[in-house]
Amino acid sequence: MEPRSGCPVNAAIEVLGDRWSLLVLRDVIFSDRRYFRALLTGSAEGIASNILADRLVRLVEAGILARGTAARGQRARYSLTEAGIQTLPIIHALGNWGLDWREGSAELRGRQQLMRDEGPAFIEDLMDELRVRHLGAAPKPHDGPGPFERLDAAQTAAAEQQAADRR
Amino acid sequence: MEPRSGCPVNAAIEVLGDRWSLLVLRDVIFSDRRYFRALLTGSAEGIASNILADRLVRLVEAGILARGTAARGQRARYSLTEAGIQTLPIIHALGNWGLDWREGSAELRGRQQLMRDEGPAFIEDLMDELRVRHLGAAPKPHDGPGPFERLDAAQTAAAEQQAADRR
Repeated sequence: MEPRSGCPVNAAIEVLGDRWSLLVLRDVIFSDRRYFRALLTGSAEGIASNILADRLVRLVEAGILARGTAARGQRARYSLTEAGIQTLPIIHALGNWGLDWREGSAELRGRQQLMRDEGPAFIEDLMDELRVRHLGAAPKPHDGPGPFERLDAAQTAAAEQQAADRR
Repeated sequence: MEPRSGCPVNAAIEVLGDRWSLLVLRDVIFSDRRYFRALLTGSAEGIASNILADRLVRLVEAGILARGTAARGQRARYSLTEAGIQTLPIIHALGNWGLDWREGSAELRGRQQLMRDEGPAFIEDLMDELRVRHLGAAPKPHDGPGPFERLDAAQTAAAEQQAADRR
């Protein structure tokens, strides 16, 4: 498909400026959902099966996801490419905006707040960890929990705080 | 409209995860197009008139643009709200991705490259200048050309370089 203009913003939007594509990427990145069924049943926004199938094809064609070869009867596993991993700053910028300008659940906001508080180096750590998970890169040693474990912990802590506030 | 989930990424995507809305915002921000006709005729991607009308209504409803009151027979002028100004980091992240992973015209890439090279402080300068243009904030003094003039100059320089390379 020819891009409609030579603008790099437009070029990105042509493959990423679609609600469901971005939500699929978010779930692959943050929830490590790698299979069709996991993406379908885990979707907080209730993605429809035909839309998920369409968006996975599009993301593979755009070089953002890679579809693993699956033997007959086996499920195909999706991986992020380097281009896919580098969509994280976009998703992060969207989440930052949502944190400031929209309501939302405390636990999911806790995750986004941690990313904001930690700054750009943490986003780099997350991308490095995605390279381990998706591209087979060698893990980097880190003291204590990894960046995704820290996000999960922030989410749990925010949920617990919310439950305590309700009591 | 109730959001489909409490996730801040989803909340942002529900209002911004649409190709044309993002392109309209890009043109308001970078090309200072404030009127329906300027947005329609200036669109590099050839936005259709009915789509532009629809997206302007949506962006106003979402609190991202404000529509000035227009006397009978006069054209309405659109302004960015603070929430609209803060979409700049999202558009910047999209353009950065496009710069790395997609082809594009040299002149428009020149603009994006300058933003990348200058880093986060320059994005803050651009947002401050948008507050002057759209919210009536007092201009901040700066030595030499303002941030948008620098972007225009980068675009012109890249276009001239491209023309020279072709000779």
